[in-house]
Amino acid sequence: MADKPARGLADVVAASTALSDIDGRAGRLSYRGYDINDLAGQASFEEVAYLLQRGVAPDLAQLDGYRAELAAGRQIGALAAADLAGIARKQPPMAALRSLVSLASADDPDAESNAAEANLRKAARLTAQQPVLIAAYEAARRGGELLPPDPDLGVAANFLLQLTGTKPDPRGAEILDTCLVLHADHTMNASTFAARVCAATLSDMHSAVVAALGTLKGPLHGGANEQVMLGLEQIRATGGDPLEAVASQVTQRLSAGEKIMGFGHRVYKTEDPRATHLRRMSAELAAASGDDTFYRMSRRMEEVVFAEKGLYPNVDFYAATVYHYLGIPTDLFTPVFSASRMAGWTAHVIEQHADNRLIRPDSEYVGESGLAWIPLDAR
Amino acid sequence: MADKPARGLADVVAASTALSDIDGRAGRLSYRGYDINDLAGQASFEEVAYLLQRGVAPDLAQLDGYRAELAAGRQIGALAAADLAGIARKQPPMAALRSLVSLASADDPDAESNAAEANLRKAARLTAQQPVLIAAYEAARRGGELLPPDPDLGVAANFLLQLTGTKPDPRGAEILDTCLVLHADHTMNASTFAARVCAATLSDMHSAVVAALGTLKGPLHGGANEQVMLGLEQIRATGGDPLEAVASQVTQRLSAGEKIMGFGHRVYKTEDPRATHLRRMSAELAAASGDDTFYRMSRRMEEVVFAEKGLYPNVDFYAATVYHYLGIPTDLFTPVFSASRMAGWTAHVIEQHADNRLIRPDSEYVGESGLAWIPLDAR
Repeated sequence: MADKPARGLADVVAASTALSDIDGRAGRLSYRGYDINDLAGQASFEEVAYLLQRGVAPDLAQLDGYRAELAAGRQIGALAAADLAGIARKQPPMAALRSLVSLASADDPDAESNAAEANLRKAARLTAQQPVLIAAYEAARRGGELLPPDPDLGVAANFLLQLTGTKPDPRGAEILDTCLVLHADHTMNASTFAARVCAATLSDMHSAVVAALGTLKGPLHGGANEQVMLGLEQIRATGGDPLEAVASQVTQRLSAGEKIMGFGHRVYKTEDPRATHLRRMSAELAAASGDDTFYRMSRRMEEVVFAEKGLYPNVDFYAATVYHYLGIPTDLFTPVFSASRMAGWTAHVIEQHADNRLIRPDSEYVGESGLAWIPLDAR
Repeated sequence: MADKPARGLADVVAASTALSDIDGRAGRLSYRGYDINDLAGQASFEEVAYLLQRGVAPDLAQLDGYRAELAAGRQIGALAAADLAGIARKQPPMAALRSLVSLASADDPDAESNAAEANLRKAARLTAQQPVLIAAYEAARRGGELLPPDPDLGVAANFLLQLTGTKPDPRGAEILDTCLVLHADHTMNASTFAARVCAATLSDMHSAVVAALGTLKGPLHGGANEQVMLGLEQIRATGGDPLEAVASQVTQRLSAGEKIMGFGHRVYKTEDPRATHLRRMSAELAAASGDDTFYRMSRRMEEVVFAEKGLYPNVDFYAATVYHYLGIPTDLFTPVFSASRMAGWTAHVIEQHADNRLIRPDSEYVGESGLAWIPLDAR
């Protein structure tokens, strides 16, 4: 089938938003008018989540109140908690989170309300809860106990504490915090769009976020960071010089017409500004780790893909090694992405509900027409 | 904000499909080229689900095989079954189904595969399972036992058996079967579109269907049939002449600029052909029930809305009284819609995966730009 102008809705404006903006030619991303380059390393994830969900940069009192709200939200509802062991045993991470967040609505007193205040409370709770669900899933599948949250720690540091069971290195927590800032929102990406399509029927925030989680799960979206890491591990495991192995495998795959995960983006025509920050943090963590092989392999892959296809790394490419060096299990990379994007998804639901219209596109019919239905006994 | 050309994606072609086609001016709907007027009453839901999912009208041997597949799929996975009591106690019906279907992937051996054969098997299992989940939810919240499915009954009759605990009247089962046929697919409605947005990241069928369930939950989509019935019950409860009460309440609400649930459609400019069949079935069931008040109230409402606004009833309007006369609890109307639409959702996932492109629209940025980020201590 030939590509239609609107196939995949590329370049079609599906919604108005004041949350984030991309200048794909200049390689710029901003949240509510603030350039991501100014936010990365300077604003905490909590400030960014507040900015997205509530519309302004918080002052200290506002931020303290929001932090307290997040700390109070670091718990798992009774229904989700009751089912956690079975889910951790039987569902892979993103399917498990889809189930757990769906179950969590049972213990959210605002679950069925779309009122503005209810949506703000749910946005904070869902943002607080998501990293705890990931850590609880990891503890449950290992058969361990989840540490209680530390109310003195921010989202990133508390996540690393609950995930690994040990107090995190402060610089590691800072770097994860910056990762959460970088991934928090990104205009009409597929999961955010799914959340808005859902919310636009005036369905509730949990339904919209569950739709987004299922959408992020796909390898063409959130699943890409995990694929990048698995690819690097696979190449390294073949033995021999890892940089040569990278170059020859990438060249081979490109000549076979295959895609290389972590490269290219429908919107950016130059380097994704998030990739710049992630590359720098990957280099720093690699050097500190004493084994920078995966980082050097990533650099080599980047060179080869650019030389052969002119493609830039996207947000998923260096996120993979950053998460790896932070000690996050590879199959939890997409869940960590979801813990950040939860801030954006919930903000988009708030925005959609505040000025709603049903999202109901047309389709082009390409099948047969005018067939006569023949009853079964004459068929 | 002024309406943008693509606001709500009205009239924007988002995907190509060979599954269903609407001629909004002529009031025609067809599935794979067969007019809904030829299918309603002549084709069973099983034939229509097969037609949608597998592309052709089945011959007798194919249909027998598919019926056996559906009958074998009438069970609830172990993880969903384990959590059913808690879910039924704590989640309203559509939230419960969102959770149960998400949990069900744990016990589907094909859950994480998008292979064509795996998708066909999952489509049949999800279609078979959905009515059983609804009946199991109803039994659990009543504290009763779910009857075992009867493999000799079709989807509609078995659903009524398991839902009500008694063997259904054959004509009632036939009418429900026709309802399932009428609701099975409807081009790019919001829930189907959400399923395709999800599947287009190459996420799996359960994720797509869970996204669709959350989307159907909204009162602007699947929730409308329940709202219609609640409205009729409310008016009737005011006492006095129910037809006069209908007329005065509708007139009042219209002059207050309110919408009347169950009327109008973005695509149909004349009567929705499904409404024609549902009106006829509502009349038949009303007459048989010995109390046709709700049917006569519906007719009166239809007259008033048409006289005042020129709007036609949509699929939700007469579905409400049909389901009511069939003895289905009002808060299960949207779940029954989902049991039918599952055939279409799964067929759309199959179609999307077979010729995939990421669905990633643009957005129009309407917020501020170029703001300088002031550090927290200087804010």
